Amino acid sequence: MADAPYKLILLRHGESEWNAKNLFTGWVDVNLTDKGEKEAVRAGELLKDAELLPDVVHTSLQKRAIRTANLALDSADRAWIPANRSWRLNERHYGALQGKDKAQTLAEFGEKQFMEWRRSYDTPPPPIAKDSEFSQFNDPQYAALPPEARPLTECLKDVGERMLPYWYDEIVPDLESGRTVLVAAHGNSLRALVKHLDGISDEDIVGLNIPTGIPLAYELDADMKPLHKGGRYLDPEAAKAAIEAVKNQGKKK
Amino acid sequence: MADAPYKLILLRHGESEWNAKNLFTGWVDVNLTDKGEKEAVRAGELLKDAELLPDVVHTSLQKRAIRTANLALDSADRAWIPANRSWRLNERHYGALQGKDKAQTLAEFGEKQFMEWRRSYDTPPPPIAKDSEFSQFNDPQYAALPPEARPLTECLKDVGERMLPYWYDEIVPDLESGRTVLVAAHGNSLRALVKHLDGISDEDIVGLNIPTGIPLAYELDADMKPLHKGGRYLDPEAAKAAIEAVKNQGKKK
Repeated sequence: MADAPYKLILLRHGESEWNAKNLFTGWVDVNLTDKGEKEAVRAGELLKDAELLPDVVHTSLQKRAIRTANLALDSADRAWIPANRSWRLNERHYGALQGKDKAQTLAEFGEKQFMEWRRSYDTPPPPIAKDSEFSQFNDPQYAALPPEARPLTECLKDVGERMLPYWYDEIVPDLESGRTVLVAAHGNSLRALVKHLDGISDEDIVGLNIPTGIPLAYELDADMKPLHKGGRYLDPEAAKAAIEAVKNQGKKK
Repeated sequence: MADAPYKLILLRHGESEWNAKNLFTGWVDVNLTDKGEKEAVRAGELLKDAELLPDVVHTSLQKRAIRTANLALDSADRAWIPANRSWRLNERHYGALQGKDKAQTLAEFGEKQFMEWRRSYDTPPPPIAKDSEFSQFNDPQYAALPPEARPLTECLKDVGERMLPYWYDEIVPDLESGRTVLVAAHGNSLRALVKHLDGISDEDIVGLNIPTGIPLAYELDADMKPLHKGGRYLDPEAAKAAIEAVKNQGKKK
């Protein structure tokens, strides 16, 4: 076991095709846009400039996170590091909302219901039908997972519960071995992890947004707790601007 | 343990920047050209068309093989499969020839010496100086490997000896578990593997060329021997044309 502080880098994938279209995405396996690819390349440059070079990467099973990791590692000249992937790092499953337009959903159900689905800690949206065109129930990525373990909807609390076993079993051992660990994942799987690391309450996590494409670096002590709460964005100015933009996302027409 | 036949796919990386410049590359970590990237994308399409979808990928630590794997898996919609990397799948270390122009080397040393370095089974080129600009002795990829295990030159026999432990310990168990395995690697690490699989003699391996970017599929029996010697290229016409082109490569002016 190496000595603390341990080095952890969180990276939310860049803009996806459905971010750009303002649709609820969740587990739908959409790709990055050109803008999202550029964000990923720049994230790798930020890592290189900060001399914060990952020794191992963990990603979700979703291509927007995997491609973000691949492009960032290409540009940081670290494509050769070991890569691990798990559904436990996937985005929150958005249930029956997957594939729906955000502005239209807001208009149809009103702001209260809309914000509850988007931001409530423990209320999931209605489950998706297994045979919906926007369901991943039968996708090959999840074939090794017994059917009852494949989510049909999730709230943020659910995401934390399925993500934390991966944190303890796979990521922490890499940190303890002294490796700098990159986790390339999604808005809500990373919010759940940050909630755990920073000890954010169920109420306060609602207000936390993580911007896309900007590495968030944590130094962790021997108990895997942050030396500095909230970590450090490698481009703090851009992070601040992006956090404001995410806050207003649901209000787009 | 799943039943035979087991499915193995070998993929040599597409054209690299130094293939295009006709330089000896070996362990120098050059990138793909645009042409090489297109070859990789097409390799993924060939896998998809053949419904031969990898469940796991093994690559070298070199970016031209990793990027080939990433692009091929992106286009086959299999970016999410587990990825394993090892220096044991690296290209042959070309010793003191790394970074030298092939045509110039041919002119300087004559065809006999040139062909012995390129094609001899058991005569390596002179070793590279550890501090040469074309040496990888101090590269971070190999820092975990004790110095005496980092090659300074290799013949094809050396490549086979360092590659086979990886075949037995990492690739065969994946095949035995019933997974379709993709190995994305290099001309000489794949020649060494094909030599082993097809039982090619030390003399005959000299004449074997593997084209870039065309998946080579093997079905293996319970003893991990090919059902059909030589396997099957997913684009046999293109493979035939490319093999001819490789044979003439050293003769370019």
